Amino acid sequence: MAPPPTSLTCGSVMAAFKGVWTKEFWRAVSAEYLATLIFVFLGVGSTMNWHAGKETPPPADLVLISLCFGLSIATMVQCFGHISGGHINPAVTVAMVVTRKLSLAKAVFYVVAQCLGAITGAGLLYMVTPSAVRGGFGVNDVRVVKQLGHGLVVEIIITFELVFTVFATCDPKRSDLGGSAALAIGLAVAIGHLFGIYWLGPILGGILAAGLYEYLYCPDPDVKKRLQQVFQKDQSGKYKEVEADDITIKPGSIDAEKGEKKDPYNDLGDVLSSV
Amino acid sequence: MAPPPTSLTCGSVMAAFKGVWTKEFWRAVSAEYLATLIFVFLGVGSTMNWHAGKETPPPADLVLISLCFGLSIATMVQCFGHISGGHINPAVTVAMVVTRKLSLAKAVFYVVAQCLGAITGAGLLYMVTPSAVRGGFGVNDVRVVKQLGHGLVVEIIITFELVFTVFATCDPKRSDLGGSAALAIGLAVAIGHLFGIYWLGPILGGILAAGLYEYLYCPDPDVKKRLQQVFQKDQSGKYKEVEADDITIKPGSIDAEKGEKKDPYNDLGDVLSSV
Amino acid sequence: MAPPPTSLTCGSVMAAFKGVWTKEFWRAVSAEYLATLIFVFLGVGSTMNWHAGKETPPPADLVLISLCFGLSIATMVQCFGHISGGHINPAVTVAMVVTRKLSLAKAVFYVVAQCLGAITGAGLLYMVTPSAVRGGFGVNDVRVVKQLGHGLVVEIIITFELVFTVFATCDPKRSDLGGSAALAIGLAVAIGHLFGIYWLGPILGGILAAGLYEYLYCPDPDVKKRLQQVFQKDQSGKYKEVEADDITIKPGSIDAEKGEKKDPYNDLGDVLSSV
Amino acid sequence: MAPPPTSLTCGSVMAAFKGVWTKEFWRAVSAEYLATLIFVFLGVGSTMNWHAGKETPPPADLVLISLCFGLSIATMVQCFGHISGGHINPAVTVAMVVTRKLSLAKAVFYVVAQCLGAITGAGLLYMVTPSAVRGGFGVNDVRVVKQLGHGLVVEIIITFELVFTVFATCDPKRSDLGGSAALAIGLAVAIGHLFGIYWLGPILGGILAAGLYEYLYCPDPDVKKRLQQVFQKDQSGKYKEVEADDITIKPGSIDAEKGEKKDPYNDLGDVLSSV
Repeated sequence: MAPPPTSLTCGSVMAAFKGVWTKEFWRAVSAEYLATLIFVFLGVGSTMNWHAGKETPPPADLVLISLCFGLSIATMVQCFGHISGGHINPAVTVAMVVTRKLSLAKAVFYVVAQCLGAITGAGLLYMVTPSAVRGGFGVNDVRVVKQLGHGLVVEIIITFELVFTVFATCDPKRSDLGGSAALAIGLAVAIGHLFGIYWLGPILGGILAAGLYEYLYCPDPDVKKRLQQVFQKDQSGKYKEVEADDITIKPGSIDAEKGEKKDPYNDLGDVLSSV
Repeated sequence: MAPPPTSLTCGSVMAAFKGVWTKEFWRAVSAEYLATLIFVFLGVGSTMNWHAGKETPPPADLVLISLCFGLSIATMVQCFGHISGGHINPAVTVAMVVTRKLSLAKAVFYVVAQCLGAITGAGLLYMVTPSAVRGGFGVNDVRVVKQLGHGLVVEIIITFELVFTVFATCDPKRSDLGGSAALAIGLAVAIGHLFGIYWLGPILGGILAAGLYEYLYCPDPDVKKRLQQVFQKDQSGKYKEVEADDITIKPGSIDAEKGEKKDPYNDLGDVLSSV
Repeated sequence: MAPPPTSLTCGSVMAAFKGVWTKEFWRAVSAEYLATLIFVFLGVGSTMNWHAGKETPPPADLVLISLCFGLSIATMVQCFGHISGGHINPAVTVAMVVTRKLSLAKAVFYVVAQCLGAITGAGLLYMVTPSAVRGGFGVNDVRVVKQLGHGLVVEIIITFELVFTVFATCDPKRSDLGGSAALAIGLAVAIGHLFGIYWLGPILGGILAAGLYEYLYCPDPDVKKRLQQVFQKDQSGKYKEVEADDITIKPGSIDAEKGEKKDPYNDLGDVLSSV
Repeated sequence: MAPPPTSLTCGSVMAAFKGVWTKEFWRAVSAEYLATLIFVFLGVGSTMNWHAGKETPPPADLVLISLCFGLSIATMVQCFGHISGGHINPAVTVAMVVTRKLSLAKAVFYVVAQCLGAITGAGLLYMVTPSAVRGGFGVNDVRVVKQLGHGLVVEIIITFELVFTVFATCDPKRSDLGGSAALAIGLAVAIGHLFGIYWLGPILGGILAAGLYEYLYCPDPDVKKRLQQVFQKDQSGKYKEVEADDITIKPGSIDAEKGEKKDPYNDLGDVLSSV
């Protein structure tokens, strides 16, 4: 049988494994750790003012910083997208949980790995930079716009834009996309980083984008049914994850197979084993 | 049967629905609103001089502004291209009407949504920025080149370039294109925004590009026939739109089907229902 | 029959038509005119110092200029690649003649159209810019490196890099390429424009790249035979062009067909009709 | 039979030939020479301060330098990827040797060609630049971060990121990638060049990335077996290279064929002939 027209698939949607105690899951968690480490090392490194020692240091180069953050994400998604989904950001992981593409148990490990990776990356950067150029370590360069409330609006819009791009780019129902998914997501990060990304806003913006994309703009017939079940009576709190086979064991397996969903019965067992 | 060679299709050409009173059309209209909101928020935000409080503020960074406008468009087309066509710009919508790919009735809703989205985006940005950095809100940064007449020439050339790129990129007759349609269109915007885009010129430039592309460079045999009919006797003013099925109901439908054109008889009913 | 694996084809190699007196050829020539006009308008426009009126004007922004030249070429190849091949540069046209992909007669029209387009674009730009910002019109911004001899070396290397990229990107024998051909060529131009492109060097560099690519690195068995014939006795000076069918009449025609070469007998007639 | 889903293949993995005394191998070696020459000429050229003659020269433009290095690599991989694999960097070549994708004998020729190409490129650049702008020739622009030990950490992380990208992008087992392999690798270089690449660190970082990718994250069943053999008893030190057929003789050959591995017996002969 002929293959379906090539569509842009990406790891983010498929990054779900049978359980948390498998070798594949820990490979994914360590990939999130490594990707966030490198991303933070390169990204925060670009915010440092290497001319700080001079009399009139030039202002921070926003093009440099934005491109460095954006292209670092693009490169990390290119590197680790097929291993962990390449979230690299708690906002993306939370959005995956909300749309029931990832179990809460697994998401906790992802977010912990991301935080540890960020700390390691920042620590390594701190270690290798002289105190003169280190400055506020990218923190006191934060723009005046960051005030309570106002900052929240900015954060929500920026993370909305990022998470919506992730969902739209990785939507397996689309066949109109060409080019690199990693680059598309990276460029979405680049324009967002003109303002910066913090914590509370991203979670809200991420949930908003995920919800709008999955439930309003591009709903699955499956999702509708699922939604009805949720609002009727969700006794078991079980997750219907998209299962991914062991990538290394069946390297030649067709993507189409990965899209199939398990029946509720097996799904339950899956979740039980994943906690 | 084997699938046809992958070609770069994009939403712009397919963004036509059975009528204006369908759920799909309003989803598309709200997508135009949301996309323009985010585009204006990010794009205009990049024109602000964050160093305005300092003694000798550096000049506006044109690379920053151009990339931010261009990559914002690329990201929004990536996000909403399959929902509304990702016009985000009245010049593109008008060009679609002129080449009879979108009915006038629907285009009016699109342009209204774009204007409302732009106003909301600018309003949100105004709300979150301190007056010091707000400056002319990107307006008094307009280049000296903008003089009556002269400005018009610039606008026509820039919008011509943009709309021609949209048509050439989304031409379903081409099989020689690879890469991301969204990025190609976004980069066309980036080089154009070195000058800026206003109102009258874009409409003229857009119509010119659409006309040249569809009627001179890459005419459809269909278009020729249609053109003859127009100049003979066009009593009903009816539009032969490319119909798109409900995207969410038949997610796996092959693009090729969307290209088929309805016969004049049904088309008439379509238009009647769309007003 | 199943289609061959998608490969990156591009117009440059196919831009040959049955003769110069066909509608398709003149459409191609006018496309070269229009593409060069827009390229020169946008590219040279980016070299102008909009802050020239101020006391201490900032230096020319090389990133701005390079990206504008590069992305303008990318956009024009995206727009006109399937119509004229998107040469936009005499160096590319000459390289196509040398490798016998385009007849000399047609190349003359191409180069004339490119020159007229460049003049029109520069004229329009001159018209719309105030004399204050106009400055040397991008000419006295030329770097000190441009000295006789030395400049030639730079030009040869830069054009070599550009033309080699065009040949490698448009090589129909390659199946390892993904992404946008237009963008790949545009980025090759961007890095080259850090120095600028002039006249003599480009011709030499272009011929060198074309020769090395076609005869040393990736020779066709056909080319070898052809080469032997040339050195044996080339009485008629005839060109064995790759024929392209009328693009607009048969929009669905498979690319593979365009690659077929006519037999010498017909070829002769072709050339006679093309002069 | 229908073709397999298009996957992003790239030369790096396939750049192995039957032996060092074949025409194809020397074509590959000369491609490495030429690619490194052009890369160094363009990349180092961008580090020069063209405003050095002025009173207050602007600081080096890191965006310019990073993009020039990154896009030069992207362009050279686009040009020579199918001829030599487009390594252009000893760190990539060493990583290929460590994962047994290239024999040590061939790697030595590659590294020598890369060094000679870099020397020629730098020599040509020295020749064409006036001493005023030449400055430290890109060397004394090196950032303060470059101190023994600390610099090593930076180099390891940066090269790790680059080599991991090469392996992840060129992994024939992945079918989730779209877009240009050359651009993905080039952008990985761009973000790395914010710091610069030296010698010892790159070798270590490259080996680390290659090892982690091939043996931890995405192991081949083949590799496991091979690894066991290595640790059991590796008498002959023979390399099981991925064989590439003569590209020019069979231009239409399907990639799938290139992936097949020779049996140990023939492999031995291959290695003997390659020394």
